[in-house]
Amino acid sequence: MFQSFEVTARPEQGPPRLAALRAEMRRAGLDGFLVPRADAHQGEYVAARDDRLAWLTGFTGSAGFCAVLQEAAGVFIDGRYRTQVKAQVAQEFTPVPWPEVSLADWLKDQLHQGGVVGFDPWLHTPGQLAKIEEGLQGSDITLKRSENLVDRIWADQPPAPMGEAQVHPIAFAGESHDDKRKRLAETLREAGQKAALITLPDSHNWLLNIRGQDIPRNPVAHGFAVLHDDGRVDLFMSAAKLAEVQGHLGEEVTQLEPDTLPDYLEQLEGLVRLDQQTAPVALADILGERAVWGEDPCALPKACKNDAEIAGAAEAHLRDGAAVVEQLAWLDAQPPGSLTETQVVQHLEELRRRDESLRDISFETIAGTGPNGAIMHYRVTEETDSVLQDGHLLVLDSGGQYLDGTTDITRTVAIGTPSPEARAAFTRVLSGMIAMSRLRWPKGLAGRDIEMLGRLPLWMAGQDFDHGLGHGVGAYLSVHEGPQRLSRMSMVPLQPGMILSNEPGYYREGSFGIRIENLLVVQEAPEVPGGDAHREMLNWRTLTLAPIDRRLIDVASLAPEARDWLNAYHRDVAEKIGPRVSPAAKLWLDAATAPL
Amino acid sequence: MFQSFEVTARPEQGPPRLAALRAEMRRAGLDGFLVPRADAHQGEYVAARDDRLAWLTGFTGSAGFCAVLQEAAGVFIDGRYRTQVKAQVAQEFTPVPWPEVSLADWLKDQLHQGGVVGFDPWLHTPGQLAKIEEGLQGSDITLKRSENLVDRIWADQPPAPMGEAQVHPIAFAGESHDDKRKRLAETLREAGQKAALITLPDSHNWLLNIRGQDIPRNPVAHGFAVLHDDGRVDLFMSAAKLAEVQGHLGEEVTQLEPDTLPDYLEQLEGLVRLDQQTAPVALADILGERAVWGEDPCALPKACKNDAEIAGAAEAHLRDGAAVVEQLAWLDAQPPGSLTETQVVQHLEELRRRDESLRDISFETIAGTGPNGAIMHYRVTEETDSVLQDGHLLVLDSGGQYLDGTTDITRTVAIGTPSPEARAAFTRVLSGMIAMSRLRWPKGLAGRDIEMLGRLPLWMAGQDFDHGLGHGVGAYLSVHEGPQRLSRMSMVPLQPGMILSNEPGYYREGSFGIRIENLLVVQEAPEVPGGDAHREMLNWRTLTLAPIDRRLIDVASLAPEARDWLNAYHRDVAEKIGPRVSPAAKLWLDAATAPL
Repeated sequence: MFQSFEVTARPEQGPPRLAALRAEMRRAGLDGFLVPRADAHQGEYVAARDDRLAWLTGFTGSAGFCAVLQEAAGVFIDGRYRTQVKAQVAQEFTPVPWPEVSLADWLKDQLHQGGVVGFDPWLHTPGQLAKIEEGLQGSDITLKRSENLVDRIWADQPPAPMGEAQVHPIAFAGESHDDKRKRLAETLREAGQKAALITLPDSHNWLLNIRGQDIPRNPVAHGFAVLHDDGRVDLFMSAAKLAEVQGHLGEEVTQLEPDTLPDYLEQLEGLVRLDQQTAPVALADILGERAVWGEDPCALPKACKNDAEIAGAAEAHLRDGAAVVEQLAWLDAQPPGSLTETQVVQHLEELRRRDESLRDISFETIAGTGPNGAIMHYRVTEETDSVLQDGHLLVLDSGGQYLDGTTDITRTVAIGTPSPEARAAFTRVLSGMIAMSRLRWPKGLAGRDIEMLGRLPLWMAGQDFDHGLGHGVGAYLSVHEGPQRLSRMSMVPLQPGMILSNEPGYYREGSFGIRIENLLVVQEAPEVPGGDAHREMLNWRTLTLAPIDRRLIDVASLAPEARDWLNAYHRDVAEKIGPRVSPAAKLWLDAATAPL
Repeated sequence: MFQSFEVTARPEQGPPRLAALRAEMRRAGLDGFLVPRADAHQGEYVAARDDRLAWLTGFTGSAGFCAVLQEAAGVFIDGRYRTQVKAQVAQEFTPVPWPEVSLADWLKDQLHQGGVVGFDPWLHTPGQLAKIEEGLQGSDITLKRSENLVDRIWADQPPAPMGEAQVHPIAFAGESHDDKRKRLAETLREAGQKAALITLPDSHNWLLNIRGQDIPRNPVAHGFAVLHDDGRVDLFMSAAKLAEVQGHLGEEVTQLEPDTLPDYLEQLEGLVRLDQQTAPVALADILGERAVWGEDPCALPKACKNDAEIAGAAEAHLRDGAAVVEQLAWLDAQPPGSLTETQVVQHLEELRRRDESLRDISFETIAGTGPNGAIMHYRVTEETDSVLQDGHLLVLDSGGQYLDGTTDITRTVAIGTPSPEARAAFTRVLSGMIAMSRLRWPKGLAGRDIEMLGRLPLWMAGQDFDHGLGHGVGAYLSVHEGPQRLSRMSMVPLQPGMILSNEPGYYREGSFGIRIENLLVVQEAPEVPGGDAHREMLNWRTLTLAPIDRRLIDVASLAPEARDWLNAYHRDVAEKIGPRVSPAAKLWLDAATAPL
């Protein structure tokens, strides 16, 4: 099993660790110390040795940070984690709603007399730092670079991960790392930059066509890379991890040990691009005047998948769809009251693991039944494990990391007989999801410009949901990949080849949750007869293939064109997935995809 | 008549003026000189003495500028004016597509060797200046403040306008200027600013509850104002204009002559807020270190209309709607081939002028029949005046400045029998317009977040239009009022009381144009049964009341909820406008608003 159901939150561990940290702060002459969730690579998942926030506070969410002072310790968490944090941290920690309360405002409120707050410059970015310092203007509070005080008191801190890197074959990557390096080097030359410092593992793994196993769920090898304007790369990654890929990397990629990076950067000549939103302060400090802020040069090229990557994603979705269909057929065969959430998760993982190319799940499967479905980022544990009962909706959000692609799918399933209220809400969510899937739009628009379409049916009924409509997805890389998003926050124009999720939902606290999610890829839209000849437009190709629960659809409330879309989608699912599943699942699939 | 159909473009006048200006440039030691359309108040309309761009070049559009060099003279115009500019300027002037080509790039292209380009610091803002200078970085071209060289050579330049200001009665304004000044002064104190310099006439006219007649179409009195943090205002406006409003302004508003403003600002102590997007460079220069960039403090309060202003707008729309219905009834009674565009404009203006409270039209009426309808900002002249022929669509976009409110309405009317293609496009435009009118959305969203809805039916057919969906509208003030817009460019959250237009269109060059426009006001949305209790949502109230041409609607392509909306809207129009029109128009109206 990749997934565990262990209860990892042990609130009672927090207070002694907090006391030890405060003693270190006194020794270091600091009035405060910041403990972020992030590591030096600002990813969503961190290695065990970097999980300082959870170790100190007990809070295990994927975003947040703790500001420790002598008299207070604020755990800053966003809307998703308001409930979870209360269960996970001891009362010595104070949950702070973030971003409603900024760190600067909280510090000013707590430290009336001013003070010095330490932070580890490897774990914060120049962008974050500038924002906090701007907020502290006019106060007597200063931020100070510091050793990591948590590491000093963490006696059994695990070692840095040393997972072996693998070659990501050209058949899946679609472009050699030689071509990628040359292509990106040209953008550096055009900008008059001698090099770019690449700190995000999925960026340099993409660039060099390698993958790794340093952290759970994301198949990346940790390290840093410097891309020179002639296409050469210096890769700061332990030689022990690179045994299998040495030949693949070739002569233009030089391996160097990670701990030599600071000295190397001291010596590096010319202007160096780095991304102030993701690079560590520690490295920006070294570059000083030589640093030029600019987007990670891999970010956009990585987001725009080439034909081989799209073909790989489509292939992975065929096999993933077969596993999901087996799961849904099995689920429907169990009477209400006979299964628990952990059994659902286990069964689905077993089905996925039958595929030899599966390397991991792409995130902790969310299986929330009844009221648990209303908790957007629910992770079932031994303690919360609940029985799927008649009248429940089950939200099942899961994905796989396959060698040829990353999947992410959510289906909401009726257990027994659904309530009319749930069916009405489900039909609205589905209508929004279909409207987005059908959309064609003029080139140049960003997620922000079109996201509303997935929410519209809910809005008209006085309803909404509190997460973005969709996120970018990598090619056998991170399941949450930027810069593109289907979100009010995203101003990045959508471009052909970008893969995004389309996942509207609805959550009624204490009662039920709904989410329907497909992955889509942006493509050039075919012309429409009578359309404006000069307009370049884009539309979506749907990658995800699994039926949507017909029992939850109020057909009378579905617009005719939405029903047509769903029938055509179901026909496609039946044709493509039918030949790949067991006879029992095939029978179930035929019924589940019958026209409405 | 407010509107004239005179051909104002006389391309042959340009070259001798251009030669004279170049001679002045040589005398002043300048290699170039900038001639913007704007005056010192950056409004859409300018007084005759400020119409330097038209005087020099012949180009009469409402946006653009000319960069005059010894060897070239570029007239920078946006997409709306590509065709118009060719007809209006002599060949000595080169049209430059803007913003595709920036001024800085064009200058760098023309002045390889570098040079000094002069500009009048009263006619440019610090924001504009910074952008040009950023673009010129690395070149040997510098910008230099200069006297206005056009004024030197313009022998018969008209004098500054001296229209008398009037009191805007409290019944229409809804809040005394005393209360407004006190309310805004508090925001200055909170920001630690001693004063704000207000350079936009509609801002200080709104603040002081006065209106004026210095420029066409906008009922404003030109001048500058300084709002102090105790609520006092120093108003730099000629005493001759203020005779009628002296008592109304009271003791806390001090009149000062406009030419004393520079000396006054030299003396002013403390931090002064000014808006870098709209204030003149000349005044920012004087304030120097005392200047704090910040939004005009009137901008947002003015945009959020109070109950009296909304009631006034609704009243104005009843009377305006009656005039429009009379017009549409009259239009339908004339056989195809019997009317020209100018007759349409004249008749409509006569109908509006029957209302005693009409002070002006709110912009030049657009009446474009057949192919002329496809020219988005068409202004009919004696030369272009065309006959309304069978099979044409007529786009009629017009509005009035009434004492109690500003109107802006577009209707597209079938002349004779419309083509199936035109009806299909009209039905799409209407579907988008209705979808936006019906929308409810969560608080906090900006125009950018919802604009797509008005375009969606066109997109799905491979079509679109090249202007924003809507603009803000003032309360007996400018018909184009910021900061709110229904546009991809607008990030300002929509708030209750904001009035906006909703005007999707479709334009097929050389064939036909379509636009349908209502004014809407943002309001708190009523609760929906079953909706989320905790969500605050907004919706629209429609102000505009006039039928939409049923002959152009393909009913089968209209969604049932759109048809219901239209039938309810037409019922409302019939009830409210029916009692206000002639018996003949009433008969026409009953048929025009019959249920579909």
